[in-house]
Amino acid sequence: MSTATMTATDRLIAFVESALFRNFILGLIVINAITLGLETFPVRQAWFLSILPIVDRVVVSVFVFELILKFIAYRMRFFKSGWNWFDLIVVGVSIMPDAGGFAVLRSLRILRVFRLFSVMPEMRKVIEALLRAIPGMGAIIAVLALMFYVSSVMAVKLFGGTNPELFGNLGESALSLFQVMTLEGWATEVQNPVRENHGWAWIFFLVFIVLTSFAVLNLFIAIIVDSLQAKHFDDEDARDEEAQEERAELMHEIRALRAEVSALHSELQRSSSGSSSDNMASKAADSSE
Amino acid sequence: MSTATMTATDRLIAFVESALFRNFILGLIVINAITLGLETFPVRQAWFLSILPIVDRVVVSVFVFELILKFIAYRMRFFKSGWNWFDLIVVGVSIMPDAGGFAVLRSLRILRVFRLFSVMPEMRKVIEALLRAIPGMGAIIAVLALMFYVSSVMAVKLFGGTNPELFGNLGESALSLFQVMTLEGWATEVQNPVRENHGWAWIFFLVFIVLTSFAVLNLFIAIIVDSLQAKHFDDEDARDEEAQEERAELMHEIRALRAEVSALHSELQRSSSGSSSDNMASKAADSSE
Amino acid sequence: MSTATMTATDRLIAFVESALFRNFILGLIVINAITLGLETFPVRQAWFLSILPIVDRVVVSVFVFELILKFIAYRMRFFKSGWNWFDLIVVGVSIMPDAGGFAVLRSLRILRVFRLFSVMPEMRKVIEALLRAIPGMGAIIAVLALMFYVSSVMAVKLFGGTNPELFGNLGESALSLFQVMTLEGWATEVQNPVRENHGWAWIFFLVFIVLTSFAVLNLFIAIIVDSLQAKHFDDEDARDEEAQEERAELMHEIRALRAEVSALHSELQRSSSGSSSDNMASKAADSSE
Amino acid sequence: MSTATMTATDRLIAFVESALFRNFILGLIVINAITLGLETFPVRQAWFLSILPIVDRVVVSVFVFELILKFIAYRMRFFKSGWNWFDLIVVGVSIMPDAGGFAVLRSLRILRVFRLFSVMPEMRKVIEALLRAIPGMGAIIAVLALMFYVSSVMAVKLFGGTNPELFGNLGESALSLFQVMTLEGWATEVQNPVRENHGWAWIFFLVFIVLTSFAVLNLFIAIIVDSLQAKHFDDEDARDEEAQEERAELMHEIRALRAEVSALHSELQRSSSGSSSDNMASKAADSSE
Repeated sequence: MSTATMTATDRLIAFVESALFRNFILGLIVINAITLGLETFPVRQAWFLSILPIVDRVVVSVFVFELILKFIAYRMRFFKSGWNWFDLIVVGVSIMPDAGGFAVLRSLRILRVFRLFSVMPEMRKVIEALLRAIPGMGAIIAVLALMFYVSSVMAVKLFGGTNPELFGNLGESALSLFQVMTLEGWATEVQNPVRENHGWAWIFFLVFIVLTSFAVLNLFIAIIVDSLQAKHFDDEDARDEEAQEERAELMHEIRALRAEVSALHSELQRSSSGSSSDNMASKAADSSE
Repeated sequence: MSTATMTATDRLIAFVESALFRNFILGLIVINAITLGLETFPVRQAWFLSILPIVDRVVVSVFVFELILKFIAYRMRFFKSGWNWFDLIVVGVSIMPDAGGFAVLRSLRILRVFRLFSVMPEMRKVIEALLRAIPGMGAIIAVLALMFYVSSVMAVKLFGGTNPELFGNLGESALSLFQVMTLEGWATEVQNPVRENHGWAWIFFLVFIVLTSFAVLNLFIAIIVDSLQAKHFDDEDARDEEAQEERAELMHEIRALRAEVSALHSELQRSSSGSSSDNMASKAADSSE
Repeated sequence: MSTATMTATDRLIAFVESALFRNFILGLIVINAITLGLETFPVRQAWFLSILPIVDRVVVSVFVFELILKFIAYRMRFFKSGWNWFDLIVVGVSIMPDAGGFAVLRSLRILRVFRLFSVMPEMRKVIEALLRAIPGMGAIIAVLALMFYVSSVMAVKLFGGTNPELFGNLGESALSLFQVMTLEGWATEVQNPVRENHGWAWIFFLVFIVLTSFAVLNLFIAIIVDSLQAKHFDDEDARDEEAQEERAELMHEIRALRAEVSALHSELQRSSSGSSSDNMASKAADSSE
Repeated sequence: MSTATMTATDRLIAFVESALFRNFILGLIVINAITLGLETFPVRQAWFLSILPIVDRVVVSVFVFELILKFIAYRMRFFKSGWNWFDLIVVGVSIMPDAGGFAVLRSLRILRVFRLFSVMPEMRKVIEALLRAIPGMGAIIAVLALMFYVSSVMAVKLFGGTNPELFGNLGESALSLFQVMTLEGWATEVQNPVRENHGWAWIFFLVFIVLTSFAVLNLFIAIIVDSLQAKHFDDEDARDEEAQEERAELMHEIRALRAEVSALHSELQRSSSGSSSDNMASKAADSSE
């Protein structure tokens, strides 16, 4: 590869990372967010209706062009950044509806607005902080998921026959139990219809609520403790470092003192015995420091 | 400006800041709070009904007079205090209804009672502490707002046609999603009507609840961590200072010791070689301290 | 007062504070708790029904007797303990129904069981810990109360005419807003009926929910921070003391060293100049330590 | 007992604790979890239906065999581990339905899947952490339980006559109050029907909600504070140890210095007085270190 192409790549990286380019993309996202929002209003004029798809197409084209530019600039390193994957998926999802045309897919175009997360450094930081909290929650989420699976299967077998609208199959059952976990209508909408057939059903719901609440609570505590630890450490480290420096200075001072006393000692020996050399004393001082 | 007018301004400031004046205003607010509360009771006697508007007018007049006094006292500095702005808006809103006479505007008169926040120093402190928590929440609130906007637009496009009473337009959709976020009737009142038309709608609500709950949780944690940090620092600082003072004392002691040893050293050299001066040794001690 | 009566009082105090007496009272409370619980079961035999009031009367008599004993033992100090006041009120409330006979007052007899809080030291500690949390919450509760009062008055004036079942008077309005604050049916049961008449009513409820949630959250945080502070301090103090002792030991060691060097110094001067006394050197060492 | 049998027991322990054996059991649990889940789907083919009970029987047999192996390996130590008790109960519950055949008991077979908790070390750790939080909550749970008992008895006596569907007996009353505590439909489903007969009933529910919320909140705070303390201590200990080591090093250095000065001192005395021994000086240095 010649020096000329290297420079071109560098110049491209500088361009896609420049504030101007980022702000241009940011502006496009905001404009698209507004036009997509306006689409939801029922009364619109003809000229406006004809402009909306054009804006949409321009925005998507620029996004695709941006991704291609970035890929040329970074080559394979492009795929190392999670945010590039995020952009790729969001833009990819945006192109699909243009091909198909289903209402559901078309509605996914609004997800493009989430590109604000990847474009604005402040939001990027928040999202990254939120994501960092997830690994610490892993084990408790696994326990919670197992609780859910077991409870769902049990609920289908116990109440599926008498209350099919709530616990007819595994999916329906899991959804009803999720509703119970959020405490939304758990008594009036879920427990009461079941209790009409199974008087003892309250035991199941009580145990489920107490256990899942306890697990969710511990999930929250895990995040709180992690956040506090992380912040606490940074501060403590700064303080500790200061104290450590002061202790190191003390140690230095004491060792210098010891060297001086040693020098004094040997000088005294020299003065009393007559013929020891000054060099030896200073060597001892150096070695002990 | 002569000394005489200066004294007048100073005296005015002393007056509006005096405990007597503040307690008088405080008393008026409490009286007005009671009369405004009494207005809500249906059965009242004629003499009482005729007194209420008079009390109201007197209170507003005193409030306006107080603000004018404060403005004369502080001049342009008046607008530097957020609490003066608060008073100005609250009193301003109180005068409007007297001009217009709409029921909605008349009901805003009760907002005057919030002047207790600005008049009582204890409440002022609480409100200021609450407001201090807001900047730390900024970024997460922005993320939450974006989530809401995207979800609202999506919900209108997906469910607006089939469930116009819940997701008919952007505002209605945002309100319904706020209800879902508070978990109030999310399953029975919002999800179930939608699921009648879109069987897969539970995915949308599940993802929305999990993501917003996680964001709100992190909002709370941010405030908790900030509060703990603020308090923790104050305490740690006091402790650290103490430890630091003790270390400084240690260092001082060691340096004094070193100086003494140096003096001893030079004295020894003098005694052995005969003619070095005492002044040099004491100089070395001073310089090393 | 003679020594004989003093001894009698002391003996009485020893008796009412003895484990035996406390356990006897504890046993009575538990028995009464069971009999009062049994009263709620519909089918009971005749002999059982005739025993219940007797147990009740015996328990109350013993409680009254216990309070009289305690009053004789402690005299005016009796009223200094909050727990004695608690017992006095609970037992007082228990006697009332025997006089009157109203169903509501009779049901208050079960409150006697709360005497477990005052009799069991473990529970006493928990309740005292809960009560200690209250002063720290005072200012925020005041702010919350003011918010409630203002919102209630406003809601009566705004919605009282159109929705009297929810906001007909100040009490009803405060209760409806408490329901909104707990998020129970705020949208479907409170907001929706109001919105039928006032389309903009969602602004009122949204602002109310956000503000009260934020205030309640800060109430919780205040308790958490207080609890953490209290625990944290105890631990830190122990650690700090240890570190401080070690630093004090260091300081002692260094001062002893300095004294020794001083002694050396003066000895050196004596040996070189011939006639200085050993006493002076040792005095200097003592004074510097 | 001969050496041969000892070796056999050891070999058996090594086998039941081997990764291979654990993974085999883990695999069986997962397969059983899937087959038990598949049982809930309505449409299944004949060959599949005939396989399910076979899988079930094989899994239970292996579990029973595993427990017997473990009992032979550990003897009485088997009952010292809580996890062995857990496995014993879960497997025991699984065998029952095969004997009886009731639908409710059959549904308990899915509880076997919870054996994942005992087999996977990661999950074991989470569960053990959750269990560790319980003792710290004991006293508050006792207070909460007493509150519930007293409130339930009171509610039966107050509202049992007029609202038997909610407060007809002690159990029903406790369940309704649990619903009120979770804030689910407390106003519309519980309070409103009661208020039709007892206008003042809101006082009861308001007090109950405030007190139980406060108690539950303190329960949560107790867990949070405990978790933070536990983590905080570990970190602090590491830091403290480091600081302590540094201080110990300082102390060592100073004592060595003091010994040297002492040696110097005695040497000086020897040189001035002529005849003191070197041994004494070095002894003083040793003793002071």
